[in-house]
Amino acid sequence: MNRLDSVSNEKIKMAVKIASSSKARKETGLFFLEGLRLCRDSALTGTQIRYAFITDKAYERFTSDAELIFSKANEAFLISQAVADKLSLTQTSQGFFCLCAKEPSLSVSSVDFGGKYIALENIQDPANLGAICRTAEALGIKGAILYGCCDRYSPKSQRAAMGSLLRLPVFDSADLCKDIEFLKKKGMSVYATSPDSSCEKITGVSMDGGVVCVIGNEGNGVSEDVFSLCRKLTIPMQGNAESLNASMAAAITMWEMMR
Amino acid sequence: MNRLDSVSNEKIKMAVKIASSSKARKETGLFFLEGLRLCRDSALTGTQIRYAFITDKAYERFTSDAELIFSKANEAFLISQAVADKLSLTQTSQGFFCLCAKEPSLSVSSVDFGGKYIALENIQDPANLGAICRTAEALGIKGAILYGCCDRYSPKSQRAAMGSLLRLPVFDSADLCKDIEFLKKKGMSVYATSPDSSCEKITGVSMDGGVVCVIGNEGNGVSEDVFSLCRKLTIPMQGNAESLNASMAAAITMWEMMR
Repeated sequence: MNRLDSVSNEKIKMAVKIASSSKARKETGLFFLEGLRLCRDSALTGTQIRYAFITDKAYERFTSDAELIFSKANEAFLISQAVADKLSLTQTSQGFFCLCAKEPSLSVSSVDFGGKYIALENIQDPANLGAICRTAEALGIKGAILYGCCDRYSPKSQRAAMGSLLRLPVFDSADLCKDIEFLKKKGMSVYATSPDSSCEKITGVSMDGGVVCVIGNEGNGVSEDVFSLCRKLTIPMQGNAESLNASMAAAITMWEMMR
Repeated sequence: MNRLDSVSNEKIKMAVKIASSSKARKETGLFFLEGLRLCRDSALTGTQIRYAFITDKAYERFTSDAELIFSKANEAFLISQAVADKLSLTQTSQGFFCLCAKEPSLSVSSVDFGGKYIALENIQDPANLGAICRTAEALGIKGAILYGCCDRYSPKSQRAAMGSLLRLPVFDSADLCKDIEFLKKKGMSVYATSPDSSCEKITGVSMDGGVVCVIGNEGNGVSEDVFSLCRKLTIPMQGNAESLNASMAAAITMWEMMR
């Protein structure tokens, strides 16, 4: 086993940079995971682990998990607590860290046209993105189509997803309007949700067959261009709350797709 | 109009303390709100505003809102930017701050026994607590019964609730088992949700008449004592995600109560 005890080691510096910078993730094709659960999930899902860093203490305490993670890593390092403190983004580090390779981008042409998918347009909060994907996986949604969203490889997104972003198929859209036209041609029903109470109630439409539901940006909802291509649905609301937040609206929408 | 330009003024020191400390909120019976929207909501909902602090710039820009807030406040102060920077918990302060009086506690004896309520047991994340109450109000839930939860008057809870915690009736339970027994005697159906797939599916039960659904702690779910008093429901799940997070489970549960 290699050891790494210096906080100024080049690999540690790189990990810190990748954890904090979307640009560094783009340039290197790597992303940063922290915590026993996420690192173990990356080993179990076949995510390519380039570097695994585990403290002596974590190795002693969770030896079989640590061995599993090390066995899947291209390079494995036992690290000192000082190095862990340098790497950790949390207040109570568990001593597990990985740098993993991003997955190749999936195109919407590989969507199962009979399945249920969620499309996220311009979701900007990494915690929302992660939480929505966690809910999607839990409810049995087949995948998420992302357009203009925040970086799903950020530590915040990965943490909120609790491993779901390592398992759920994610499709990157470069042109959501074009992709929606394509999916409609393939026979899928494409819906978009809106707080506008004049839209059809979500409980009144069929969710049979292939369905895509578009969830829009936290502040502005679904863009006009995309909205005009979709059948418009609303989650009926009462009270003075202006709207459901994006992740709550997404949860209810996905639940209606799957119930 | 009074002016307040010193960051070491006693009222400002008190506001900072109340913003950061649950103990200070308990001792004074006051809580801290920040932002145009929350301060305006407090004025519109009849929340008692003891002190309103607004920057000159915010007053100039949003004069009618500022006048409304000042008109409802026992004491109103124009403040300097330096004071606002001292008070603000956010990176981009809007220049609106209030210290409001907590509402008197409601007892579950004043619940409408024919209505739909959510009970939250040991919810510890203030953002979850606020988001659940926001969703509750949006979906038309009549009120929230809180037992052992984090402080709903914390700035984080109030912000996540987007004003809903100022409007939604909130009942404080000192003994949730006793209160559930009482509500059942009054004819209400009391459900609790669980990730356990052997429980009844949530789609299979009647939500007619008076209903209370209990949502449990983020990590541990509903306590055994409470669970044993409730009809047990589950939101069917697939995939590898261990469970829905508490606020997503709450959203789906409340949606099923109201749809």
